[in-house]
Amino acid sequence: MPLPQPELPEPAHPDVDSMLSRRFGKEVANYFSGSSLNRVSFLRPDHSFLSQALKHPSATFLLFNNLEPLVKAPDQLAYRKFADVQSIIGEDPFHRTEADTIAQYNSSLYQPQIIFLGLDARHGDFEYKGAYKGQPWFAVDVTPKESVKDAAEKLIEGLKGESLDFSKGRMNLNLPAEQAAIYAEARHLLDWNARNPFCASCGYPTLSINAGFKRTCPPKDIAPSVTNAGERPPCATRTGISNLCFPRTDPTVIMAVVSADGQKILLGRQKRWPPYWYSTLAGFLEPAESVEEAVRREVWEESGIHLGRVVIHSTQPWPYPANLMIGAIGQAVPDGETVHLGHDAELEDAKWFTAEEVREALRVGTSGLGEDAGSEYKEGGLRLPPKTAIANQLMTAVVNGFASGSPMI
Amino acid sequence: MPLPQPELPEPAHPDVDSMLSRRFGKEVANYFSGSSLNRVSFLRPDHSFLSQALKHPSATFLLFNNLEPLVKAPDQLAYRKFADVQSIIGEDPFHRTEADTIAQYNSSLYQPQIIFLGLDARHGDFEYKGAYKGQPWFAVDVTPKESVKDAAEKLIEGLKGESLDFSKGRMNLNLPAEQAAIYAEARHLLDWNARNPFCASCGYPTLSINAGFKRTCPPKDIAPSVTNAGERPPCATRTGISNLCFPRTDPTVIMAVVSADGQKILLGRQKRWPPYWYSTLAGFLEPAESVEEAVRREVWEESGIHLGRVVIHSTQPWPYPANLMIGAIGQAVPDGETVHLGHDAELEDAKWFTAEEVREALRVGTSGLGEDAGSEYKEGGLRLPPKTAIANQLMTAVVNGFASGSPMI
Repeated sequence: MPLPQPELPEPAHPDVDSMLSRRFGKEVANYFSGSSLNRVSFLRPDHSFLSQALKHPSATFLLFNNLEPLVKAPDQLAYRKFADVQSIIGEDPFHRTEADTIAQYNSSLYQPQIIFLGLDARHGDFEYKGAYKGQPWFAVDVTPKESVKDAAEKLIEGLKGESLDFSKGRMNLNLPAEQAAIYAEARHLLDWNARNPFCASCGYPTLSINAGFKRTCPPKDIAPSVTNAGERPPCATRTGISNLCFPRTDPTVIMAVVSADGQKILLGRQKRWPPYWYSTLAGFLEPAESVEEAVRREVWEESGIHLGRVVIHSTQPWPYPANLMIGAIGQAVPDGETVHLGHDAELEDAKWFTAEEVREALRVGTSGLGEDAGSEYKEGGLRLPPKTAIANQLMTAVVNGFASGSPMI
Repeated sequence: MPLPQPELPEPAHPDVDSMLSRRFGKEVANYFSGSSLNRVSFLRPDHSFLSQALKHPSATFLLFNNLEPLVKAPDQLAYRKFADVQSIIGEDPFHRTEADTIAQYNSSLYQPQIIFLGLDARHGDFEYKGAYKGQPWFAVDVTPKESVKDAAEKLIEGLKGESLDFSKGRMNLNLPAEQAAIYAEARHLLDWNARNPFCASCGYPTLSINAGFKRTCPPKDIAPSVTNAGERPPCATRTGISNLCFPRTDPTVIMAVVSADGQKILLGRQKRWPPYWYSTLAGFLEPAESVEEAVRREVWEESGIHLGRVVIHSTQPWPYPANLMIGAIGQAVPDGETVHLGHDAELEDAKWFTAEEVREALRVGTSGLGEDAGSEYKEGGLRLPPKTAIANQLMTAVVNGFASGSPMI
């Protein structure tokens, strides 16, 4: 996985001396988590709130073109104001109630996607109902297409005049942790909306509501080309709450595997990775599996190793396109440590490394996939993913004694 | 949540004396997890494997009618043989390669859904390539509809003659843990297939492949009614691996919240629950949230409480329709313990209970939602969900000292 390399964020409450902290240690806040925004999710159906937030002078906009964010540099997002995107999203895209928006649904009109990301309580003087305060954040899709093609091209031309441009793929993105978390929220939701223009239940086009956090299948479509007075056939998503209307997040398991004696760590590699590069095993959780079961299944399928106890360590959002990485530590059973790659052909190699080898590689051999290892790295030594990858955090936890409660070696 | 009440399964490797077990205790295997089947997921694209498994004398079939399983009694699934379902699924639904199945796609033909659930290595003498052994398990949708209406009605009539019938809703299901895990896999996948007949990317009908674990958007449809020689427009799901082709599982967080001093537990109740009934708070994880962040957000939105450290305890599949319950323990920060229900109107009440109250209610006040509390329960006392609910397991973990490492009181 190609990964950027900024500093890791502090956890949300790093200095809370709680019983949980004393027993389980400081929380690991993985890259792409640790957002400073309050999502106030219950305000998303409230068009009046959205409209006021959108037009407030402190409102801040992230712009995306084909899912790539506008940046000042590969390590800095660019922030824009409402005036910059007004030519794309119009005077007030939230002027109607949601009920009216659904009733007026017209599939022939293109509406650029807008996401309400949340309020940053540390800045701005926007306030709603005396209770919800902070700088409002939005993401807007300014991809030049359909009815906004010309306006978007003109906007982008202007931005280029200010030396702003869209990121060139995620290999080039290298954001500070706080920006990464906000970018991840925007990217995940823009991707989900773009990927799901049709209803999987009935096949008809759907409509974005809840400021980008929901898609609904309207019962009527007033587009001129639609027959039957715009009435659509019944759809199961209208007869109750359906998960199809809400954003999808795919749970993924990723695990550091330790040997039965706790002295070795199992790592694997894919053929396309650079020489000497290994990482922890990973895979998608399947229907009706617990995380613990998915970890045991994936490890057996990919490496032949049989695991006993599995413990969850921490989690990481991964917006390419919609993953939740659930990081775990698993321990092999004594008679289940033989590597066998023949079940699933996913890995080129999987093998046991000593904790000392992994500890040393964490010190001198980590980097992003497309980057060089550091100056202390010697050719032939083990290479590992950077600190921004949860794989790195899991290996670090193991060599720091997560399994035993004290350093293993 | 309506919950059945069987014994809980033992974890996969209960007697492994590993470092993880010694430090973190025995793994909690929640209800609906702990399946005895090896899914051999890498064999699902292999039609020869599926065909042989289907026809093997030991092959076992679960039958479903409108997502309700065939049962002998509310606490026993009924198992059938291939001969019983042959009138529905035909001589050999896996006689073609997947590539041929896709090439021959005809949207006008109804194909009852079949799921390959896995192999039970403890039974049966089926063997594939000398490596994968065990009794093959399948689920088949025998809902009387489309071209199989008559055959399915006849089949169901015959089953009723043997005093077998389909479950009457999940409130009536009360399966032993091992059956519950297999049922959960079947139900989740049958529901996902039934819920997603169309491609969310292009709106055209999709086709089940990988023995029920994948839906693909074929490039051609040979149905007589289709124009343009059956060629369909391009679809984004065909140009790479798309998550839309794979089953959806929705990550959900559920959390026992302890007070800053560790002496109290926060519980909430919904208006529709019986009097005195409370449970842990819960909610869906959102895009680009870590589990830890989702726990803090949901707890604040529903109760106003601010959490510091969050630790994940265990997880539970929940096939109604497609949830993964991620169970966590969170601890309030000292100045964030005031309950405020005004943000999100989801709960009727949320309040702090002493660990002693919860401990006593776990002893005398647990039951399924539709059931009476036990004989020791006294009217007015706290009522809680049964052991099959992860909520119960989380509260049990807290009163048994999960947070502090030893009993809190």
